[in-house]
Amino acid sequence: MLTYTLEGLPGEKLYSKLYGFLKNDIQSGALAAGTRLPSKRQFAENLGVSVITVENAYAQLISEGYIYALPKRGYFVSHGQQNGRPAACARQLPQPAPAREPAGAPLFDLAGSRTDPENFPFSTWAKLMRAVLSEQRADLMRNAPAGGVEALRLALADHLLAFRGMRVDPENIVVGAGTEFLYGLLVQLFGNKTVWAVEDPGYRKLSRIYESHGASCRFLPVDGEGLSVEALAESGADVVHISPAHHFPTGVTMSSARRLALLRWAEDAPERFIIEDDYDSEFRLSGRPAPPLTALDGAGRVIYMNTFTKSLASTVRISYMALPEALMRRFIERLGFYACTVPNLEQYTLARFIDEGFFEKHLNRMRIRYRKKRDALLEALLANDELGLKVENIHSGLHFLLRVPRVEETRLAACAAARGVRIVPLGAYYRTPPAATGPDAVFPVSYAGLRDEDAGEAARRLREAVREARGE
Amino acid sequence: MLTYTLEGLPGEKLYSKLYGFLKNDIQSGALAAGTRLPSKRQFAENLGVSVITVENAYAQLISEGYIYALPKRGYFVSHGQQNGRPAACARQLPQPAPAREPAGAPLFDLAGSRTDPENFPFSTWAKLMRAVLSEQRADLMRNAPAGGVEALRLALADHLLAFRGMRVDPENIVVGAGTEFLYGLLVQLFGNKTVWAVEDPGYRKLSRIYESHGASCRFLPVDGEGLSVEALAESGADVVHISPAHHFPTGVTMSSARRLALLRWAEDAPERFIIEDDYDSEFRLSGRPAPPLTALDGAGRVIYMNTFTKSLASTVRISYMALPEALMRRFIERLGFYACTVPNLEQYTLARFIDEGFFEKHLNRMRIRYRKKRDALLEALLANDELGLKVENIHSGLHFLLRVPRVEETRLAACAAARGVRIVPLGAYYRTPPAATGPDAVFPVSYAGLRDEDAGEAARRLREAVREARGE
Repeated sequence: MLTYTLEGLPGEKLYSKLYGFLKNDIQSGALAAGTRLPSKRQFAENLGVSVITVENAYAQLISEGYIYALPKRGYFVSHGQQNGRPAACARQLPQPAPAREPAGAPLFDLAGSRTDPENFPFSTWAKLMRAVLSEQRADLMRNAPAGGVEALRLALADHLLAFRGMRVDPENIVVGAGTEFLYGLLVQLFGNKTVWAVEDPGYRKLSRIYESHGASCRFLPVDGEGLSVEALAESGADVVHISPAHHFPTGVTMSSARRLALLRWAEDAPERFIIEDDYDSEFRLSGRPAPPLTALDGAGRVIYMNTFTKSLASTVRISYMALPEALMRRFIERLGFYACTVPNLEQYTLARFIDEGFFEKHLNRMRIRYRKKRDALLEALLANDELGLKVENIHSGLHFLLRVPRVEETRLAACAAARGVRIVPLGAYYRTPPAATGPDAVFPVSYAGLRDEDAGEAARRLREAVREARGE
Repeated sequence: MLTYTLEGLPGEKLYSKLYGFLKNDIQSGALAAGTRLPSKRQFAENLGVSVITVENAYAQLISEGYIYALPKRGYFVSHGQQNGRPAACARQLPQPAPAREPAGAPLFDLAGSRTDPENFPFSTWAKLMRAVLSEQRADLMRNAPAGGVEALRLALADHLLAFRGMRVDPENIVVGAGTEFLYGLLVQLFGNKTVWAVEDPGYRKLSRIYESHGASCRFLPVDGEGLSVEALAESGADVVHISPAHHFPTGVTMSSARRLALLRWAEDAPERFIIEDDYDSEFRLSGRPAPPLTALDGAGRVIYMNTFTKSLASTVRISYMALPEALMRRFIERLGFYACTVPNLEQYTLARFIDEGFFEKHLNRMRIRYRKKRDALLEALLANDELGLKVENIHSGLHFLLRVPRVEETRLAACAAARGVRIVPLGAYYRTPPAATGPDAVFPVSYAGLRDEDAGEAARRLREAVREARGE
């Protein structure tokens, strides 16, 4: 078998060395065209390196045209590479195949949108998938309607009634591969002349997606009661996208008065709609539930939207929306030609997961876990009050607001980063930063992705960072 | 348990009868609010009807607010339904839950885009899925990059090299939940001020999707060599969407001269691109392969696109595109924030399916099967030549053109429909029907969805329809 000595200069990557050796031998003709290269596993064993090293070297050689792969057969030296000229379309890659984990990822990410993958009820999910695969073969091969398979829409309607007190006709539900995709469908439904209003501060992806579809956005202020309906009325927007149950990043729950004012705004003119993004309402950890706007909507102006990327796992790409009757008719007329983007297997599996009570159990378990995680983090953060830290809006969802007096927020973020803790100041979520941000530094703290055992250490480092940032 | 006698008037559906009984009893108070209804299975057994009958009745009662379902608990009578008024948001459904198969579906659909679900290698696919579920748990829980998981992109690059002679950098591949979704991504990539050109006649969904995203389309004529590049140059379009290997519906393969002219058109100005939609190139049944346009593209102006909805199954929603280097950079910059729309499970399963040689085997098997199906249909159609039928463009893809002299095409389609055979005249695929359609009626005949044993019968009925349409 091919053997190279890969002891490189310090700092030189192994795969890069291996790649260089192989390229030279191919160019010189030492490795003739058509030669079969060793399998990745055997080569790695022989050279005493990891399989990933060989994989990266091979990937780079493939992308530059020096070698090619044949399924089930292996890797072979390409023809016509012997004069040092790779084929026309080959090129020098700045980077080899992407590494498995981004380098320099923070140890403790308190500003991510990920949930802890350990929480996913993997075995139950896999068991249901196996059951669907063996019992529902015919269902799996039947094209789903644009809105999704019937079984899932029925399960979702039941779930919404039981958990949110909403009566939704299953036929008005549209299932899609993530909320990002559904936002795009809504732009198509309303047309890109429609003006969208989003919250400022807010979840920045929203406006990126709307603007990416050619729609224009207005950025409206949020106060302690939620989105300003006055600003909305003045903005000229037709559709407003909000998360009344739990605003990101401030954590505000919209007041009843504001909800009613918002519904009145929508009813005041035709073609005004509200998108109620209920992205983490499953995680009300304490306090009383607020009914969804959709339940108060007598005029058919509220589009309800939710996702399983937070409540189950970010790699389960299933979201859904419930449209008012008239909009559903419009959807079928204009967009009913689309195929549903979620595979039938995932749809039927989720339907069983809900119908057989696993989702309810999972949510109960998660609420307990997240409450524990939150409490551990709060306790460690607020231990002794000599730093004067304060927290707000802790009752719902998977983040709260941390208020740190007497510190500059970007400096604190930098000091935390140096300790492996990622926090992003509230100011970064503003499109138009407010004139005065107040005397305190404020950070939304997302704890869903934090491992249970890390809460104490993350808090300790963050407190250290506060001291350093203050020059103590 | 509740018992009703469901012997209805002739023509009255059982579920409708059951629905009526339950509604009456709820309105009259015979079934009190909160009463638990029998489980679907037990009720069905008791009444001697199918579970679907009970399901449909319950679904309609749910959608009208008379009853509600709780996961794992069952169906219950709603509150406040006793005076005959369903709740505010309930409504009379014109139809109950949709039937399993659309009524009046043709027996032999020769104009569908479906493939025969029987062909899907279900057991192999399910076996691989089970393996991925048990062996790649960590991979399944890791967020994929916007373009898709690395394993699948590597497998696709290998496949493209082996089957289409294309060298594609795996990092320039973008995986998405169906080509429909990818078209939408391209509109976002180029912006909706971009003018699109599509083929006329053509696959009508294309322009619907582009226009649905706010882009404008030009419809360009196709002759025996493919799309008219002259018309393209005059149209002012920036991006042209074609299927050079096998045009739908005419079946034309684009000539070499036309391919080169097309590439020159793209190179003549910045920001001109060609989308090469290779949707059924796997099914070249005879004749020599034409290289993909992408392989001739020295200037980075061709976007290659393909799908597994035809080559595997319409319910496997996985498609992909390979972008030229510069466009991939733009994709990452502008659209890299999107989550990949295909679940990791399906991505890893497909990667194994390709890597372990199953896809190649499957395609070989399919080509043999489709060739047999095509030949059986051709033989039965052309048996005795007294009808003067002619076929064209039979070598590639999953449809051919049928030319029927001395008959009016819409009349023939109607006569065929009366015999349970669905054919759609070529004229129906035109945006701008040509001034003179020629003396013959022409139909693209899609045979992929036809069951093997049905070819003879479908042909016999179609020939009968020709005789009737001619008044013979």
